Amino acid sequence: MLSKNKIKWIHSLDIKKYRETEKLFVAEGQKIVGELLVSSFSTVALYATDQWFKQNIHLGKYFPNESEVVTESELQKVSFQKSPQEVMAIVRIPEYIFESKNLKDKLSIVLDTIQDPGNLGTIIRLADWFGIENIICSMDTADVFNPKVIQSTMGAIFRVKLYYKPLEQVLPELINAGLPIYGTALDGENIYTIPLSENGIIIMGNESKGLNKNLQSFIHHKLFIPNFPVGQKNTESLNVGVATAIICAEFRRRLLG
Amino acid sequence: MLSKNKIKWIHSLDIKKYRETEKLFVAEGQKIVGELLVSSFSTVALYATDQWFKQNIHLGKYFPNESEVVTESELQKVSFQKSPQEVMAIVRIPEYIFESKNLKDKLSIVLDTIQDPGNLGTIIRLADWFGIENIICSMDTADVFNPKVIQSTMGAIFRVKLYYKPLEQVLPELINAGLPIYGTALDGENIYTIPLSENGIIIMGNESKGLNKNLQSFIHHKLFIPNFPVGQKNTESLNVGVATAIICAEFRRRLLG
Repeated sequence: MLSKNKIKWIHSLDIKKYRETEKLFVAEGQKIVGELLVSSFSTVALYATDQWFKQNIHLGKYFPNESEVVTESELQKVSFQKSPQEVMAIVRIPEYIFESKNLKDKLSIVLDTIQDPGNLGTIIRLADWFGIENIICSMDTADVFNPKVIQSTMGAIFRVKLYYKPLEQVLPELINAGLPIYGTALDGENIYTIPLSENGIIIMGNESKGLNKNLQSFIHHKLFIPNFPVGQKNTESLNVGVATAIICAEFRRRLLG
Repeated sequence: MLSKNKIKWIHSLDIKKYRETEKLFVAEGQKIVGELLVSSFSTVALYATDQWFKQNIHLGKYFPNESEVVTESELQKVSFQKSPQEVMAIVRIPEYIFESKNLKDKLSIVLDTIQDPGNLGTIIRLADWFGIENIICSMDTADVFNPKVIQSTMGAIFRVKLYYKPLEQVLPELINAGLPIYGTALDGENIYTIPLSENGIIIMGNESKGLNKNLQSFIHHKLFIPNFPVGQKNTESLNVGVATAIICAEFRRRLLG
């Protein structure tokens, strides 16, 4: 049974300040916890129904010392999710060391002030699909260890590394490492015809304000995803997750040809 | 000033049953209401701050009879949004008549059991970007007039038509009209090399369960978005909005070449 204090402690991990103090975050649900356990992340505690433990006995060697059978109603009490989950894990926040030179031969994503946790989760998930291992976020981007982000990554968080850095410092470093910087702009070049390199940085801006003005000068190549019918002037726009997906897909398509 | 009864009435429009009885829905915020007013949709009532009315005087000819100045705190009381909005509109639900033959020369989207309002909104928004005018939804797909969907369409809802239909009846009709049906599958063909027609139906399935089994036999062409590195077996997946976006982008790219 979960004590009142334990429930209070788990609930506190919904707040960034407490996650940072404790260096812990919460992951929930069969798929995500299943992927967590076989990942390099360190699971500190596991609370699950009797049924979940029985069905996942083959993962037993990954269970932490604090593995506790709880009832469904107890789980619902501590859960951050609307729909009931069978398992909740408390996980240690990993500490990654960022080095620009490690990104030299890779395609990576830089995010400036992405505020919606769902958008951040979507971008981490698609990065995983497209084999993008590193995402560098501005200090004011949503926190990746927010339960909403973790859930929407569908486990991709255990394979993609996120760094929070002042972008005006990191972008010059990346440029010095020889990386071309790609950004989106309404006056950009057609993404389907502009040359794209194998490595580089795709920089995406805030949901409503776009890219911060003081970062725009770092962009070497401005990209535009053609709307349809072509050239029609309109009030439409693409969601930042969708735009990131189409750009990453196009970089990867070039390597398949 | 908004009466208690009026506030109660507006709040009731958060619930599908009441939206259907009243044949009304709610749209909020500068961008969305701005696009609403110049659209073909019928605005029944407008509640906005004094400042909003002053700044939008050029749209005055579109204001309904029931246009009322309210304070910011009143607006916050009736709003369905977390962040305060300057304007709220009550809008008549349009009645579209569906005819398969009207889709004959077009690219359209069919959605089976899309449950997340945000995903539905994202798909409507990207459909608008790619000039896709019609989306046919299974009866159990999220309601497009849910305030969360309306807000996440960012105004695209005023240009893209949605129909709710039993898909097992509509898909044979669309096939009879000569339309090829495209769906996604893990054993599908590489979307970048498979021939794609200009017209057709892109069918997308539920967020976690994928496409309903009894609908799979309607698919003529199975598509696969290559992950990276190619051929790597993995546990990743793409969010349904992201997958729809990449597929629609590829159909449109073919027309640009």
